[in-house]
Formats: sequence, C-alpha cells, structure tokens
Amino acid sequence: MDNKVKLYIAMTLDGYIAKLDESLDWLMEVQGKGDNGYANFYSTIDTVVMGRKTYDWVMDNLDEYPYYNCDSLVLTSRTIEDNKITTVNSVDDLVSKIKAENGKNIWILGGGIVITELLDRELIDEMKITIAPVLLGNGINLFQESDVMHKLWLNHTTVYNQFVELDYSIIKNIIIDK
Amino acid sequence: MDNKVKLYIAMTLDGYIAKLDESLDWLMEVQGKGDNGYANFYSTIDTVVMGRKTYDWVMDNLDEYPYYNCDSLVLTSRTIEDNKITTVNSVDDLVSKIKAENGKNIWILGGGIVITELLDRELIDEMKITIAPVLLGNGINLFQESDVMHKLWLNHTTVYNQFVELDYSIIKNIIIDK
Repeated sequence: MDNKVKLYIAMTLDGYIAKLDESLDWLMEVQGKGDNGYANFYSTIDTVVMGRKTYDWVMDNLDEYPYYNCDSLVLTSRTIEDNKITTVNSVDDLVSKIKAENGKNIWILGGGIVITELLDRELIDEMKITIAPVLLGNGINLFQESDVMHKLWLNHTTVYNQFVELDYSIIKNIIIDK
Repeated sequence: MDNKVKLYIAMTLDGYIAKLDESLDWLMEVQGKGDNGYANFYSTIDTVVMGRKTYDWVMDNLDEYPYYNCDSLVLTSRTIEDNKITTVNSVDDLVSKIKAENGKNIWILGGGIVITELLDRELIDEMKITIAPVLLGNGINLFQESDVMHKLWLNHTTVYNQFVELDYSIIKNIIIDK
C-alpha cells in the first residue's frame, strides 16, 4: 500500500483526549478563526478507523455521522445497524482490513486503546497531534501505558490559533533496549 | 515581585520526564547541533527550585552541581551538606521563599510533584515545555493527576533540532467548572 495510516487527534498539554465524562468542552472553548487545518487534512483521507467508544461519542454528540463519504471501520464485537459502516471484532482483523485499503490515506480517529494497539504493531505511519492550551488534571489518556518505545521524526509544526499541531513520522523496525 | 516563575523541562510526546529507572538516555540520544536554547534560558534566571529526587538525580548523574551561580532551593525534609543550597521542608515554606525572591527569573526544574503543587497554587507564571520525539510507553509523568484545571496562553513555539519548545503563560484567577 502506498497510502499512509495517520493518527490525527487533539490532546491537552497533559495528554488527555477527553475528560473522564468524555466531554470535549475544553477543546471547543479554544477560540479562533478557521477550522485549524481540519478540512485540509480530511481531503487527504478516504477511510476512518475508530474504536467503539469513539463511534458512540460521535453518534451521541454530533447531529449526524460525518464520515459517510469515507469507508468506516469500527473495532467492536457488537453490531452496528448501519450498512455503510464496517465492523471488525479483533485487532488482527482490523490490521488486515487496513493493510488491504488502497486509495487515499487512512485516518485513525481513536480512542486510546485502538491507537496504542496499532502503534505497537507499527501500523501507524504518521501522527498529527494537536496540542490544546489546557492542563486538564485528569481524563482519558491519548497514549496508554505500553512496553514498546517508539522513536519519532518531527516533520513540521503548525500553529493554528492557540493550537500547536505536531507532525511526526514513526520510525519503524528499530530495536529499542528499554 | 516582577520576576517570573518558569517551568522549563523536557518531556516525551507521551508526557514522561524520565524512565521508571530515572534514566534520561531517550533525551540525550536526540541528535542535533547547539544546546537547544538552554544557555539563552539559563541567562535569564538566578534561582533554581527542585524537589529532593531531582537534586539527587543531578548529584548522581552530573560531574558537579551545575547551578552554584544561582540561589538553589530544594524541597526536602532531609539535610543537604552544602551551605550553598537552601533546603525547605514544606511547600508553604517553598512558596514563601519563592515569593520573597527578587532579581532575575526563577526556574522550576522539577520533578512532577513540585511542579503540580506550585501549579495548583498558581505560583508558576510560564512554562517552556520541550517535547522530545519519543513515545516512551511508561515512566515518570511530568504532570501528576490533579483536580485543578488550568488554561494556558500559547506565546510561541520554537523548533530546536528534533525538539519542539512550547512556551505558555498560565492564565490565573479564573474559575473553572470541571
């Protein structure tokens, strides 16, 4: 596959993607003009990948599912009554489906468990992490604890309003002695 | 006081300031020229503040104590046999001593507990967080869990080699409903 698997997500400076109650108000409150690069990024992908909790969050908080013009892969053992969405019930199946994708890039939306599983299997090529100017104190972590260490390569940084987007490639196939 | 209290520290993208064994090899391994802004920052301060574990790390890992040209405040209930270093045995005493400082800025070196205590008492004015291109997976967190949320103001970002330095002011005296 020539397309890339990309993580694109916002976190607080202290590493949280949501409050413990899954609220994102800290993210929505950051003022500024424009869409902070979202439309530009979204135009480069044609597949979205997420865990069940992220899917539920989207359905509970948005007026309608916003990714119908992409292939959607949701990791869950439950059924989703939407024939435009593909469910996969194991990480192995998810990995196979991602590897079989052709076309544009693949967006890993989250959440933390899906991200860490795919990172540790070296399936994520690039990460765009948007850092919000907030210390939340507690919440749901972006990065779960893991025995695997990853080295990154900083491609560039972009400031959008009060957000800093850090764009990294993940350096693969290196042996790290922790 | 007109001088500022500044946190200046490096962390991995996943929020760790050291491995569980206190090793910083992940930080030292990042290649590049120059000192990543250190000398420039150090010229603006005349007081360093640290916890006992940070002091011990310095003494165990560096050839000599590198901050003798500054006032040094170490938070510890133990004695340090060095009359150039001032020990304080409570956070309240530390806060009083910091507030009494005049002159140049004050550098909060760490570790995580000192940082979180001073943050939550709104005693830190600015943070320069240098993000290293590494996901460590586990280690010692920069930010401890806290019930206090802080809003930040992004002043600027600077890229040094593969490091990204994020410079924030901490917005004080705001009531946050978590």
